[in-house]
Amino acid sequence: MDPAEVSIPPLKDLTIDNITENVNLINSQTPDPRLKYILERLVSHMHDFARETRLSTKEWMAGIEFLTAVGKKCTDVRQEFILLSDTLGLSLLVDSIDHPKKPSSTEGTVLGPYHTHDAQTQALGQSISGDPDGTPLLCLCTVHTTSGAPISDVKIDIWETDSKGSYDVQYEDYSGEKPDGRAVLRSNEEGVFWFKAIVPVPYSIPHDGPVGKMLGILGRHPWRPSHMHFMFEKGGFDHLITALYLRNDPYETSDAVFGVKESLMVDLGIVTPEQAKKYDIKEGAKLLTYDFVLMTDEETSELRDEEAKKAMEKLGRGDMRIVEGLPIPMEDVD
Amino acid sequence: MDPAEVSIPPLKDLTIDNITENVNLINSQTPDPRLKYILERLVSHMHDFARETRLSTKEWMAGIEFLTAVGKKCTDVRQEFILLSDTLGLSLLVDSIDHPKKPSSTEGTVLGPYHTHDAQTQALGQSISGDPDGTPLLCLCTVHTTSGAPISDVKIDIWETDSKGSYDVQYEDYSGEKPDGRAVLRSNEEGVFWFKAIVPVPYSIPHDGPVGKMLGILGRHPWRPSHMHFMFEKGGFDHLITALYLRNDPYETSDAVFGVKESLMVDLGIVTPEQAKKYDIKEGAKLLTYDFVLMTDEETSELRDEEAKKAMEKLGRGDMRIVEGLPIPMEDVD
Repeated sequence: MDPAEVSIPPLKDLTIDNITENVNLINSQTPDPRLKYILERLVSHMHDFARETRLSTKEWMAGIEFLTAVGKKCTDVRQEFILLSDTLGLSLLVDSIDHPKKPSSTEGTVLGPYHTHDAQTQALGQSISGDPDGTPLLCLCTVHTTSGAPISDVKIDIWETDSKGSYDVQYEDYSGEKPDGRAVLRSNEEGVFWFKAIVPVPYSIPHDGPVGKMLGILGRHPWRPSHMHFMFEKGGFDHLITALYLRNDPYETSDAVFGVKESLMVDLGIVTPEQAKKYDIKEGAKLLTYDFVLMTDEETSELRDEEAKKAMEKLGRGDMRIVEGLPIPMEDVD
Repeated sequence: MDPAEVSIPPLKDLTIDNITENVNLINSQTPDPRLKYILERLVSHMHDFARETRLSTKEWMAGIEFLTAVGKKCTDVRQEFILLSDTLGLSLLVDSIDHPKKPSSTEGTVLGPYHTHDAQTQALGQSISGDPDGTPLLCLCTVHTTSGAPISDVKIDIWETDSKGSYDVQYEDYSGEKPDGRAVLRSNEEGVFWFKAIVPVPYSIPHDGPVGKMLGILGRHPWRPSHMHFMFEKGGFDHLITALYLRNDPYETSDAVFGVKESLMVDLGIVTPEQAKKYDIKEGAKLLTYDFVLMTDEETSELRDEEAKKAMEKLGRGDMRIVEGLPIPMEDVD
């Protein structure tokens, strides 16, 4: 770049006290006001972190080495940075911010790294699991609006581990051609969907990498309580990523990724003889029932904007505008 | 891990407002009080960043992908995370915190990624550069204490680029056997050291990776103004990492890594006929002179502790102790 094109204020003699404003100044050259705001907050927090901890060069280098190792551990089927975000509570937080929920709707929770696009669309009533060692489970569920109307033709993505606690993609010979423990269903005219599966079991998140080492140093275990993932998609409704958790799981109050919510905990029942006959499953098999409630895009966006306004006011930046659901301080808007 | 060994408070129903304290609670199981403090500040700032920007899932994923790309770019001879830290001002900040300077001493600046341990120890007066295309430069320097006493036998590490703006390690065929543009010297009894080199030129930091892409999006250039690196080591004195910058460089007020300080800027002189004869260099060659002043370990540690105490008080955590130069809030000390 021609030095003559450099259009920034002179940066020199930067100190502990003035470096942050100057880095924000040079970054403010970006034409994207949202990126400018994000970078300003990122740099300010990163610098405050160093100032408040009096971070030493040795500790800084340990951080550099840790992040490098996290990056090196990432492959097409292993995302160690997502694992880091999950185990530090960031993933749950971002989901809560992006998908706020009214009390009457179903809460969201962490997506996790095991959703794939390999699942086959199945007719209602079929089994999503081919694991003969799992405990048979019948799932009878509904989907409604916040005002109680059934929602038909919702695309429902479901995934769970096998009875050993592993997702299909975690097996070395997995090719994507024969997905197991996952399926895509569609709710019927009454907003009902049902399928067969196996009772979920606890499993540990991958902990043979730097994130697992971090958990060890922090005295934390890598376990997630037994759960089944659900994702709901339908035009006009906010995308819902959630999961149901089995009550009384040994890890129900110490989930390594902070996903458990009381409203998402379920007690399994027992399939009655009538149900066994109707749904073609063994009498005495386990039964999971749940009524999911979706928020509309409009309800979500209204609530999200409201919460964003409150947060910006708290930050002393109430003079802002919201562009595509995301706040930008007015001073950053051209 | 046996669930019975889980010794943490119940974590459930975590929300935008309570997740931070709960993540900090589970992390507080570490027996290392300094790590506990660092993690607490890290998680608090990271979560505040997400809350204040109302970070969307899409933006979070862009961040995950960016960090993954930074990690993937790192090799034995390329540290993209250090580059990221440098270009966001974190490296300079950490150096300023860890190596505070009295006004009477020489200021520090960024180490950068090009220091190696390949440099040969040379006698005073030899050339550190084998580049025939560089402009010859004679460097006449001294090292003193803050009270003006000469310091002898200081190990001085010096490194600079060739006339094309590349360090030896940046060439593909570099093996480490024939270092160029770098040397280790020792100051003499009078605290004097001198050597021949070439006049430094501006160069760009590596910008073919994700950090270069970031700079581009932010409208920033990747250039560093002309400079020569110096590192001073001697028992009892604080390690000094610094550099001298040539005045009137086109990038002197827009260094991509924020390293320039007025006190480190030099005007080059011209070698006199007497100097040319004495130091065996061409008459009319360029001349660099500088008097470096080192702080003792004791002076540094006193100043660092003082600044740490002030920062902790400002944070409302004045009740702390300093262990090996690093603050720990008393509530974290067992």
